[in-house]
Amino acid sequence: MRRYAPVRFTDVSIEGTFWRERLETVLTRTIPSQYERLRDHGILESLTIPDPPPPLRIPPGAHGLSMQVFWDSDVGKWIESASYVLAHRRDPQTEARIDEITEWLAKAQLPDGYLNCWYLGREPEKRWTNLRDRHELYCAGHLLEGAIAYAQATGRRRLLDIMCRYVDHIAATFGTGPGQKRGYCGHQEIELALMKLYHATGTRKYLDLAAYFIDERGHAPPHYFDAEAVARGEDPAKYWFGTYEYSQSHLPVRQQRTVVGHAVRAMYMYAAMADLAADLADDSLRQTCEALWKHVTTKRMYVTAGIGPSASNEGFTQDYDLPNETAYAETCAAVALIFWAQRMLQLDCDGQYADVLETALYNGALSGLSRDGTHYFYQNPLASDGSHVRWQWHACPCCTMNVSRLVASVGGYFYSVGPGVAAVHLYGSSSAALTVDGHTVRIRQEADYPWSGRVKIGVDLDTPARFTLKLRVPGWARSAGVTLQGQPLPAPATAKGYVELDRTWQAGDVVELDLPMPVERIHANPLVQADVGLTCLRRGPLIYCLEQVDHAEAELGLLRLPRDAELLATVREDLFGGVVTVVGQARALRGDASEAPLYSSKPLDASPAALTAIPYFLWNNRGPNRMQVWVPEL
Amino acid sequence: MRRYAPVRFTDVSIEGTFWRERLETVLTRTIPSQYERLRDHGILESLTIPDPPPPLRIPPGAHGLSMQVFWDSDVGKWIESASYVLAHRRDPQTEARIDEITEWLAKAQLPDGYLNCWYLGREPEKRWTNLRDRHELYCAGHLLEGAIAYAQATGRRRLLDIMCRYVDHIAATFGTGPGQKRGYCGHQEIELALMKLYHATGTRKYLDLAAYFIDERGHAPPHYFDAEAVARGEDPAKYWFGTYEYSQSHLPVRQQRTVVGHAVRAMYMYAAMADLAADLADDSLRQTCEALWKHVTTKRMYVTAGIGPSASNEGFTQDYDLPNETAYAETCAAVALIFWAQRMLQLDCDGQYADVLETALYNGALSGLSRDGTHYFYQNPLASDGSHVRWQWHACPCCTMNVSRLVASVGGYFYSVGPGVAAVHLYGSSSAALTVDGHTVRIRQEADYPWSGRVKIGVDLDTPARFTLKLRVPGWARSAGVTLQGQPLPAPATAKGYVELDRTWQAGDVVELDLPMPVERIHANPLVQADVGLTCLRRGPLIYCLEQVDHAEAELGLLRLPRDAELLATVREDLFGGVVTVVGQARALRGDASEAPLYSSKPLDASPAALTAIPYFLWNNRGPNRMQVWVPEL
Repeated sequence: MRRYAPVRFTDVSIEGTFWRERLETVLTRTIPSQYERLRDHGILESLTIPDPPPPLRIPPGAHGLSMQVFWDSDVGKWIESASYVLAHRRDPQTEARIDEITEWLAKAQLPDGYLNCWYLGREPEKRWTNLRDRHELYCAGHLLEGAIAYAQATGRRRLLDIMCRYVDHIAATFGTGPGQKRGYCGHQEIELALMKLYHATGTRKYLDLAAYFIDERGHAPPHYFDAEAVARGEDPAKYWFGTYEYSQSHLPVRQQRTVVGHAVRAMYMYAAMADLAADLADDSLRQTCEALWKHVTTKRMYVTAGIGPSASNEGFTQDYDLPNETAYAETCAAVALIFWAQRMLQLDCDGQYADVLETALYNGALSGLSRDGTHYFYQNPLASDGSHVRWQWHACPCCTMNVSRLVASVGGYFYSVGPGVAAVHLYGSSSAALTVDGHTVRIRQEADYPWSGRVKIGVDLDTPARFTLKLRVPGWARSAGVTLQGQPLPAPATAKGYVELDRTWQAGDVVELDLPMPVERIHANPLVQADVGLTCLRRGPLIYCLEQVDHAEAELGLLRLPRDAELLATVREDLFGGVVTVVGQARALRGDASEAPLYSSKPLDASPAALTAIPYFLWNNRGPNRMQVWVPEL
Repeated sequence: MRRYAPVRFTDVSIEGTFWRERLETVLTRTIPSQYERLRDHGILESLTIPDPPPPLRIPPGAHGLSMQVFWDSDVGKWIESASYVLAHRRDPQTEARIDEITEWLAKAQLPDGYLNCWYLGREPEKRWTNLRDRHELYCAGHLLEGAIAYAQATGRRRLLDIMCRYVDHIAATFGTGPGQKRGYCGHQEIELALMKLYHATGTRKYLDLAAYFIDERGHAPPHYFDAEAVARGEDPAKYWFGTYEYSQSHLPVRQQRTVVGHAVRAMYMYAAMADLAADLADDSLRQTCEALWKHVTTKRMYVTAGIGPSASNEGFTQDYDLPNETAYAETCAAVALIFWAQRMLQLDCDGQYADVLETALYNGALSGLSRDGTHYFYQNPLASDGSHVRWQWHACPCCTMNVSRLVASVGGYFYSVGPGVAAVHLYGSSSAALTVDGHTVRIRQEADYPWSGRVKIGVDLDTPARFTLKLRVPGWARSAGVTLQGQPLPAPATAKGYVELDRTWQAGDVVELDLPMPVERIHANPLVQADVGLTCLRRGPLIYCLEQVDHAEAELGLLRLPRDAELLATVREDLFGGVVTVVGQARALRGDASEAPLYSSKPLDASPAALTAIPYFLWNNRGPNRMQVWVPEL
């Protein structure tokens, strides 16, 4: 059912300044600093299972759980990120660090393959007794992803072998066979990691195990989480979170049609489901994915592609409930949405998936990493009174390594190949080697994307070959000009948001794509209460925002954008190493609003005030600052 | 310092249809039905202190407290309401009921005067050990207010004598003398009740006790609530609410400059403070009141004069934090704001106090009572998806009797007298007998207020007398025409929002006041995030709202009011026995919004749609219904 396969990031060389700069920052600053944080916060030490184990650094929350139970996952994500970096540029120090971690894990692993450092260090007899809360399989999933990435980057398999033994233990422990536990993890992740392992090895049992976890989820009665609570001597009715929607285990997966609960758990699960739908040609899973996709993208997503508005469940609430200042919109959730979108995109190259992928990539996910590469947002609100600032680390550091593994492998989202097709999803200067029907096709993009929509694509191949080159026309583009060898193609064939150029290609062919990037005003659906009367500015794939620091003339909350005000894209070389800002003439309500009446029948005076908007992902790189994405119109 | 005294409601006969209808409903339906509710919910039974006490009907909340601890106060408020009704129209059945309650209380009272049915029935040894949470003095205050009202209405003093003995016990228990507890109540109320008792009796010790409670509040260390927690063997740091701002005991009262915490507690306290400021000519208390007044009315009040946006503390949050759909805006808080405003108004007849009093009266307080007089709002949000509906009773029925005692005594807010002055604060057909400098002045108002701003005031007195007739020009009025004996007074003297007519008045004098009532669009201060881009409609003292039932053409959330749309006041005889509605041509976003894109750069189509607004206080009298006060402008 999956017609396309993404071109691995290792086959794509990022050359444009935009991603090159982000990538270099992650390579040189983010990955080393994350290692230091993991070391300084005792997370690495926890892998050595000291006896007695070190005291809890993170006290248990109201529900009696400490975030330390998922420290293994942070290590796994760092290994994965660092391995992606190694794929760009080998580095003995990083490799020595991963090898050292590998040895700790080797030492910790039990003869039967079990490997969870929290349980091994504190209560090994309780392993697999609280799948609902304790993240054992989640940790296994992230360590597995790390092991696969490290093996692919370096060829060193020791960590992968360790993890495969652990997976074997998991496969023996869980399933529908006699004596097996019919459990699954409260925090999905193992499923998509197993699919990665299946894709990396071709070994069917890994796919079967992923399918088991997906298929088993949410069946009741008895609900597995209830049964294991009873087995622990607990009253399932006293579940601290209250509802299994939190972990998308309230219903069998195929019966789910609304996105609910914890956003990251949901996205990781949907990503695995999309993989399974493709590999098993499972129409019911695919239809479930499509229904969930439609739901989240038409009712429960921020304009930045941030998802999950609520802090209380780190997730979803009601349709159209998208408050701006209190938006949770976890970085991890936006990254995980990208994972899901990419998998949906491979099914039949439908641009709706690439549109959301691109929006999340350039906005709600990228915002999670500071320009200096060492500060992070966990939450990505769409407005701030200045109190929301980036942090160096977090009690739950999941987002840090999620954004770094995304950036370090960003080239992997640019291209796909399918039978007789090479597809370009993302734009930006880069070189890629694609294998289309056995032919090696070298594609060289030149584009100052996302600042400009002019894209030049050179095709190079050893012998002429016929295939279809699909070029994505983003959903934000109102028109797209295409030329071939400099000659305009007035009405090229298009399908699902892609221009299709079906011909015999030969070395030296050049296609140019022109995607005009006017500044556009976006309005939210009127059912989004939080955005009534407001507009946000978009140019190309970038959502813009206002920061107080650019508005000396007026307090941000007093700016109003007249409906007829012209907005212009303006290059600012002095900002962030050169960015396109959006400028215009707004109006500022005059006077000290705090001295103005609370209610008045007289309109407030307003005077002209310059407005400058910067790309949302760059906010809070100049100190604490008021910010807003949505601007009141006048 | 207090220059004015309100004319008691017993000296004011309400004749206009607006208040007459409300009053009759309260007299004939509300008071009897409240008695039935008190009986059916076991609240009356609790006064007889059965042995053993009946089981808890209201389970303790998270903090281990049951709302049953303040059932005495509900009885006190019902007696007060019922007594106001008796002042209008004696009724043997009601009096027999109050007399029966009196006998229960007489039987319950201990020889030393102590009288709290919760403690007496369950844990008499623990009396006065938890002033912070257990509402003993609050209950005493409401029973005292009831006793005063009953004595004034009927001349029967038995209940008042019981309560005076209780007050003597309280005065002996609390104070700065040797062996006395230096406590005060977590829920203010006793203070203003003691001031009422002082005003009713002239006995100074009641004022002194009120002053003690106000002066003692918030001193630390040791904070009294900490000390008594320690004495109970509890850790004060584990106070279930966490902060003494909740009960305005975080600072000595005179150091308070911001309104914080539980809104009703705050308002009751400020009312007592205003009384004390006047009776003691205490400038520091007055300045404190003025600062708190300015703060709440310029930063923390809804346009309906509802206050306290948050359910979590039933009170205040941050400046300009005034969400509409989740507005708590407890009915009790609006009623208590009226109490405070009236006391501030007597200081020097400053119209700013009458403006807020009137706004609360016609909007945020009156909304608490249904048209049928037997259903209530506890919370008064400014928008609803249709799920917020009136209830017959509430686990905490405080609001029911607060709104009934307000309506039953509404005439008491119309007039004041001072040296050489008769002041008219509120308009509406009524007759009143005022004593100005020893002269009896009979004032007869004819006005179809609040539907019309044309007011005719006839003055009648036995012999001509010189005094100043002050007529309030409401803050909402953009102009005010005044005629005397039919002759226009082109530029009458005015002071602090009142026209001042200083002359020798004689029988037959007629003043006419014309307050034009155009429909006005109100905008909130731009710092009120919830109201950005929205307008609300006001006509005279009434805030209007939209209900879905009046808008068959469009879902309420899709209506947009063009900035240039004309709005007209239109009498609708078929609605609520005849009301002035506001109608206009709005625009409705077309199509099914739930099928529209979540974000779009194309404006939604809109088509003309009739808009009908009704007075806010009348909403949800036609079944469950979407409602909004604030309307997006286009």
